Amino acid sequence: MIILKVGGGKDIDWESIAADAAEIVKKEKLVVVHGANVIRDEIGMKLGVPTRTITSPSGVTSVHTTPEALDVFLMSYAGLANKKAVAVFARHGLKAVGLSGVDSIWTAKRKEHAVAVGEDGKSRLVTDNFTGRVESANGDLLASLLDQGYLPVLCPPALSYENEIVNVDNDLAVAVTAGALKADTIVSLFEAPGLLKNADDPASLVPAVRKEELDEYMQYARGRMKKKILGAKRAFELGVKKICWGDGRVEKPVSAALAGRGTVIQ
Amino acid sequence: MIILKVGGGKDIDWESIAADAAEIVKKEKLVVVHGANVIRDEIGMKLGVPTRTITSPSGVTSVHTTPEALDVFLMSYAGLANKKAVAVFARHGLKAVGLSGVDSIWTAKRKEHAVAVGEDGKSRLVTDNFTGRVESANGDLLASLLDQGYLPVLCPPALSYENEIVNVDNDLAVAVTAGALKADTIVSLFEAPGLLKNADDPASLVPAVRKEELDEYMQYARGRMKKKILGAKRAFELGVKKICWGDGRVEKPVSAALAGRGTVIQ
Repeated sequence: MIILKVGGGKDIDWESIAADAAEIVKKEKLVVVHGANVIRDEIGMKLGVPTRTITSPSGVTSVHTTPEALDVFLMSYAGLANKKAVAVFARHGLKAVGLSGVDSIWTAKRKEHAVAVGEDGKSRLVTDNFTGRVESANGDLLASLLDQGYLPVLCPPALSYENEIVNVDNDLAVAVTAGALKADTIVSLFEAPGLLKNADDPASLVPAVRKEELDEYMQYARGRMKKKILGAKRAFELGVKKICWGDGRVEKPVSAALAGRGTVIQ
Repeated sequence: MIILKVGGGKDIDWESIAADAAEIVKKEKLVVVHGANVIRDEIGMKLGVPTRTITSPSGVTSVHTTPEALDVFLMSYAGLANKKAVAVFARHGLKAVGLSGVDSIWTAKRKEHAVAVGEDGKSRLVTDNFTGRVESANGDLLASLLDQGYLPVLCPPALSYENEIVNVDNDLAVAVTAGALKADTIVSLFEAPGLLKNADDPASLVPAVRKEELDEYMQYARGRMKKKILGAKRAFELGVKKICWGDGRVEKPVSAALAGRGTVIQ
């Protein structure tokens, strides 16, 4: 079984992904998990709810998910991006079923109230931040859908143990989903050829990484790539054997990543 | 089995509906179908895509669903309203799974290009209208979810036979879903006590209607109520035995409608 993570960049080639997926599902079970950060940011701007971040006293920056930001998140991820992806898969002959983590799929532990440091250097308690970490995935429901021939297409947000809707890190959700389904392979597609030593130089692609080396590669990683490395580490802890990072903008992007055209971690 | 239709008005009491549903599912299977027209209109206004209508040469008015309007539709129905409803059901102990018609649930026949009459009285061909009529529902997938103890929570849009996303009439979708699941009862909740002879006078409630009389009641119906009557007629054709219309703003709204507090059609 393959868990296919598709990033939320605007140049991702969904038609090529769907055409490729339609071939792959003839031989192997597949679950898709996608992002939508670019359209989330666009819709948020249009609605006067721009994506904001908070910075912890130790300097870590994360998205500040207020109730209004969560509405934008639901509209862009579970509404627009998820259903458009489902329709693209359908045009390629796949019976896709789009679900968010909220739909009895992902359970998250909501993060404790955060302390944020303002521009004035003063700390304040942030109580309206709806974020969490996915701790479990509903493998039974996903397996039932797969057994009936459906392609599950998943996206954040998730539900907390208290049944609040919470924004979650997608790469961690992918790892937990792979663990619940005992998937041996994760393919993660984004807008770069793979892991780059220098983010501005596609020629600095790292073709292979041993999972024990992942910590060392944190030094090359910027922003979202750091979260991908953390997600990959968790996936290996949960039993995944191979993770293939590849370019979501090329022909047959899933097959290319599986064939080692990007970065293979194992 | 009961198909519960919940209208998209802003005063609908979802907490009371969920509390009531949590009791009802102990005795009977339940599928929820909801609207979201008020938040669709609000989000459309904010995004500069106000809901527009087209008028046919015979004088029938319907929503003009351009690609931009369809995006707003996905955001508000499949994104915001569906996932918030799922979370409310979850807080009342129900394992809800939110799906749009796009998710291998409803197949619609896209309507032929319409002729619309402009304010200048001239007719023009409308080719960018993505609407359709639901012709089939995936009873197997819904039955599988019900058998696993889930509460399906459905909403438009649907997919056309050509796998285009299309806006559909929700009351007709409810009828087709009831037919596919051989449900004998439909409960439809909205922001009125039931069918009113005079839409402005709650005391003009019609408590009981024989299904053979539905055509006569078209004269009392305004706007959306006309579509409800047409949906009810189709539901009876498809084998439904009883349709209860009731107020979605009261305590135990589903039980009240079932107990005949609104309008019972049979």
